[in-house]
Amino acid sequence: MNLGRTLLIDAPAMTHLVRQIGLTGCTREIAERIRKEFMRWNSFEKSARLAFHSQDGVIELMPITDGRQFSMKYVNGHPRNTAQGLPTVMAFGVLSDVDTGAPLLLCELTLLTAIRTAAMSALAAKYLARQDSRTMALIGNGAQSEFQALAFRDLLSITHLRLFDTDSDATMKLVTNLEGAGLRIDVCRSAAEAVCGADIVTTITADKTNATIITPEMLENGVHINAVGGDCPGKTELHPAVLERSSVFVEFEPQSRLEGDVQQMTPDFAVTEIWRVFTGHQTGRQSRDQITVFDSVGFALEDYAAIAYVHETATRLGIGRPIELVACAQDPKDLYGTINPAPHMANSFRSASITPLKTSLART
Amino acid sequence: MNLGRTLLIDAPAMTHLVRQIGLTGCTREIAERIRKEFMRWNSFEKSARLAFHSQDGVIELMPITDGRQFSMKYVNGHPRNTAQGLPTVMAFGVLSDVDTGAPLLLCELTLLTAIRTAAMSALAAKYLARQDSRTMALIGNGAQSEFQALAFRDLLSITHLRLFDTDSDATMKLVTNLEGAGLRIDVCRSAAEAVCGADIVTTITADKTNATIITPEMLENGVHINAVGGDCPGKTELHPAVLERSSVFVEFEPQSRLEGDVQQMTPDFAVTEIWRVFTGHQTGRQSRDQITVFDSVGFALEDYAAIAYVHETATRLGIGRPIELVACAQDPKDLYGTINPAPHMANSFRSASITPLKTSLART
Repeated sequence: MNLGRTLLIDAPAMTHLVRQIGLTGCTREIAERIRKEFMRWNSFEKSARLAFHSQDGVIELMPITDGRQFSMKYVNGHPRNTAQGLPTVMAFGVLSDVDTGAPLLLCELTLLTAIRTAAMSALAAKYLARQDSRTMALIGNGAQSEFQALAFRDLLSITHLRLFDTDSDATMKLVTNLEGAGLRIDVCRSAAEAVCGADIVTTITADKTNATIITPEMLENGVHINAVGGDCPGKTELHPAVLERSSVFVEFEPQSRLEGDVQQMTPDFAVTEIWRVFTGHQTGRQSRDQITVFDSVGFALEDYAAIAYVHETATRLGIGRPIELVACAQDPKDLYGTINPAPHMANSFRSASITPLKTSLART
Repeated sequence: MNLGRTLLIDAPAMTHLVRQIGLTGCTREIAERIRKEFMRWNSFEKSARLAFHSQDGVIELMPITDGRQFSMKYVNGHPRNTAQGLPTVMAFGVLSDVDTGAPLLLCELTLLTAIRTAAMSALAAKYLARQDSRTMALIGNGAQSEFQALAFRDLLSITHLRLFDTDSDATMKLVTNLEGAGLRIDVCRSAAEAVCGADIVTTITADKTNATIITPEMLENGVHINAVGGDCPGKTELHPAVLERSSVFVEFEPQSRLEGDVQQMTPDFAVTEIWRVFTGHQTGRQSRDQITVFDSVGFALEDYAAIAYVHETATRLGIGRPIELVACAQDPKDLYGTINPAPHMANSFRSASITPLKTSLART
């Protein structure tokens, strides 16, 4: 490592990295990395993310550390941004060395957020969905929808999608982007129509409101619901009665109680942290008819997995460039010297205005 | 603003900016900006910083927002870093637009942290120290000491310094750096000797321990203590009896109770938030003989002031360069298009595998 240098992976470099590995490869590798990190759940100092809410959106900080590395994601959520040509979600991440506090990596994370969210969804579904699931309803066809579709194709053998979005342009964009992806696609006129006959239902809508995308009468036995869009206070997608009828799995319970669809339930409503399923402490799906919900909000550990993956992969492939994000004086005790370099005269006194030790002692 | 572009002020650019304005000018302008921001204290959503402690140091995140802009500082504190050629403190900051969540500025903040800390110290001392103060003891002669010395020279007419550090090389570096600064300097053999006869005592030591740099028997009536180094749990500089004998002023009380020298006191020990003094709600120094303590820990609002100042100044002077810190797709709902650009075919269906709306409806 260059002392005082931080590797910058900006948006073009991140795009290059993902293209080099391929989206399928990235999603698979990040899913595996997430699983590995969740397996050592108790090694991490965890906290609910810090969220700053404003009228039209939220800015969040998501830090985590295992005592060896520290990572932090900055991410916003502003559904109205698209009207002015900006993304709803923008993110960047930092990876630091805990022993020195030095920032090792600064990287774009909007793209990786979509990939890690899809990887997490697919990973959870491997434990929670019926193994013979082939059809997925995808409700909310915005910026993250392709990543969900392809992750479920690649990690769960989904072959058939049923799409719905209130914005038909978004659906058309998704359909176009998935051309040639080998998926059979039905465009539906309502959420209810999309859900009908689906083995897995993914909800990934953007409106910051208590919506009821999925209502109890839509439920079919054995379905797995991958509820991604309900991810902050006042933003939910499932009718409470859907949760009542389901076995609900979450990432980090203290954060999910605040932000997930389970924010609608009383604090004693039973949820299972998904790491317990990965480690075998608890069973995921227990029967063919069980209805399961992965109430995903996005947790800092998923971002740590993604950021650490980017750091290792970028280093291996030589992607990115070093920047001097923090000052690193030649003499670390001489920060002032960086703005006012002077010949070092340690152990000597030249200026008449300086009284050396002995005179000083005589005075006091 | 370029959509999706963030202005990067790296370490060389920040050095350039500070040199362009001059340290005295920067310190004065940031002190004035801090005063202005503290005057509108209740406009800010404030929280104690998030601190992640490890064996040898701490990594902290310091966010704040006024509903219009959001700022965050990343900063570490690792006293042992200097042994391997790294600074004890490294910092960078982010400024964002709350309406969109877009990051506007990413900037080096190690240098600015030293400047804003000194500006805050001098600003508080203008209200708390005797107006005829001319001699300052400076205990702890590390990376931040020059900034404290010069801020007190420029904002309070300090003419005489009394230095002490357990590391005599640090003191010699400070003496050398202050040559020609127009300050009379005494190098002292102990903290007690440095404090003797000083009007103001600044403590800015780095050891992460409950130290007692200042003990009650050193106190002289009318002294102002600028206690800067005690700034995290388990890291203090003043003997509790020093606080007992003084009027104690803090930045943000909930954070100072955890991190300041007042962490040693019971929760009912009286402290005054310094903004109340700036606004005139409360008096600073009330008598010539009063002993005052500014128990400074560093608060996010000071960093917001510094970051906003950097953003405005860099923009005005044309310093820094834009980077694509976050991805900004041409079509903000088409993040996937950034890695897999395809000709847009919205409203048309080319692939045989896609079932358009009517067929789909017929099916369900």
